[in-house]
Order: sequence, then structure tokens, then C-alpha cells
Amino acid sequence: EAPAKEALCRSCHGKAGAAPIMPAYPKLAGQNKAYLVSAIKAYRDGERKTGMAAVMAASAMGLTDADIEALADYYSSQ
Amino acid sequence: EAPAKEALCRSCHGKAGAAPIMPAYPKLAGQNKAYLVSAIKAYRDGERKTGMAAVMAASAMGLTDADIEALADYYSSQ
Repeated sequence: EAPAKEALCRSCHGKAGAAPIMPAYPKLAGQNKAYLVSAIKAYRDGERKTGMAAVMAASAMGLTDADIEALADYYSSQ
Repeated sequence: EAPAKEALCRSCHGKAGAAPIMPAYPKLAGQNKAYLVSAIKAYRDGERKTGMAAVMAASAMGLTDADIEALADYYSSQ
């Protein structure tokens, strides 16, 4: 069951993060949880500036640490 | 059949990029090719500074664009 804020991610990364809408966007399904947490936080906290950083920072801005845990749990288990 | 320079990646990302040696390292197996190309180049060219950027920049330093294509092809097809 997807976390509440998953819909925002789905808009670019696709259902269960398995089918990104652009080939340059990463698949999230089955990715390591700890990597997902560090990547999302790096975007949220403005540390990661490459690729789609602007969109990702805006998307991640409203996420709490607990949200990020729940999303990383969800995607790593897909 | 793995590209020549794959052994370097395998040391951290595991066989076929499917079993990283640390949970904070991303799985590469089945990842979108275009994403892999952009990420490896961002490390190689010093644009991506988060996470294991230091190790990744050193690892990617010797990679040509053709090497990166071959590696991204390989991992995206795992």
C-alpha cells in the first residue's frame, strides 16, 4: 500500500517507481532503501544539484524524514 | 558479457550491479540506461558532489564516453 505522498513521485517515476515517464529518470522499484533515503534527502536539502535537481528539490521540499522513510520503504520493496 | 571496465564497478555495486556491498550504494541492475549515463558522467565531470562522489569521481575518471555507454548498456540490461 503506497504511502500518502507517493502520488507525487509516481507522476515522474511511474507506478511503483518501475516505469519512469522519461528514460533519463531513474527507476526506484527495488532500489536499496538507504540509497533512496540519502538521495531524496540530498535533493530536499539542496545538496544534490545535478540532473533534475530543481524538480526533485521542489518535490521533496514538503517531505518529512518520516515521509522519506515510508517512501524509501515502499519503493525498495517493489 | 561484461564490458572491460566493469570489474571496477563490481567491487562496490556487486555482480551485475545487483548486490551492492553497502546498503547505501545503489543497485545498478535494470536501471534506466540514460539515467546511468547521466549519473556516471556527472560524477566523472565533478558535477555530482553528494554521497560517495569522491570515490565515484575517482572511479569514473578513467572512463571514456564509450566506456560509459557500454557500462550503462550492460547494467540496464541486467
